[in-house]
Amino acid sequence: MQNDRKLILYIAMSLDGYIAKHDDDISFLSAVEQEGEDYGYSKFIETIDTVILGRKTYDKILAMGIDWPDGDRKVYVLTRTPKPDSGNIQFYFGSLTDLISTFKSKEGKNIYCDGGAETVHQLLQEDLIDELTISIVPVFLGDGIRLFKGGLQELKLQLVNVKSFEKGLVQMRYIRMRNL
Amino acid sequence: MQNDRKLILYIAMSLDGYIAKHDDDISFLSAVEQEGEDYGYSKFIETIDTVILGRKTYDKILAMGIDWPDGDRKVYVLTRTPKPDSGNIQFYFGSLTDLISTFKSKEGKNIYCDGGAETVHQLLQEDLIDELTISIVPVFLGDGIRLFKGGLQELKLQLVNVKSFEKGLVQMRYIRMRNL
Repeated sequence: MQNDRKLILYIAMSLDGYIAKHDDDISFLSAVEQEGEDYGYSKFIETIDTVILGRKTYDKILAMGIDWPDGDRKVYVLTRTPKPDSGNIQFYFGSLTDLISTFKSKEGKNIYCDGGAETVHQLLQEDLIDELTISIVPVFLGDGIRLFKGGLQELKLQLVNVKSFEKGLVQMRYIRMRNL
Repeated sequence: MQNDRKLILYIAMSLDGYIAKHDDDISFLSAVEQEGEDYGYSKFIETIDTVILGRKTYDKILAMGIDWPDGDRKVYVLTRTPKPDSGNIQFYFGSLTDLISTFKSKEGKNIYCDGGAETVHQLLQEDLIDELTISIVPVFLGDGIRLFKGGLQELKLQLVNVKSFEKGLVQMRYIRMRNL
């Protein structure tokens, strides 16, 4: 039995569709840094109890020394090199469809995909993403790591919300339409 | 002497950054077709007296049998294969920087770039675009011809306007910031 837990991609990109430069530099995000403005993140994260992300993204977060995620959210790191679990962090190398089905067969809050591009690609390939909240940073990055790598099938979306902010960030929320 | 004529990219793309499928299919645009809604185009085109576009895009427009552009706007088709001018249409194969400088040295309305991706790439490469109005169609196309091909330098943008429409199109207008 499926309940209504949703897998949500929540991520920022440049206008030209990059999440970082080729050397993983994400300093373009500083264009929208503003004290007291978290672009809805803390409200969003309250609706989440599970996080999935790619191993490279996880390593980057560790390297930045960020104390993340707070609370007792479960974190699944997608990897090809299994490692033992560590606290609330599990390393996963099985089928994504199975993983998401398992989540959805249980009661719980929503599931948050935090990237990176490879994880997003795999989730889209298996059509597992239910909602996308995309924040467009007002920078033309020119080159780098694309959020959407291409080579996928078409998906119908419904825009449910758009907000713009003082620093020029535009945040759009889309639902994946499955029954058209 | 420069006046204030601006080169404006005014174009629609899918959420994942495509302007067409690989076979030039632009049927994803039908997701936002609505009688009586032109997404500001007729108002925009009144501010324009010059259009530049790539030869492939021009050929596509001809093939679709569209009577375009109306009025006496001057059209410059960028090509590697010179052809004689035809009415208000000129085929151009020289320097883009020179072409835009010539426009800007004269009085006139704004200049509209209508694509395609190669023309956009060349204009961005020479940093000639002053404004970008990007309309995001609520479709994840999956694959196709990207609006922004990559391999370019970073450009700072300022968001000046964002509008959303009933069919889920989000239209953002950015100014290229040159003096930061």
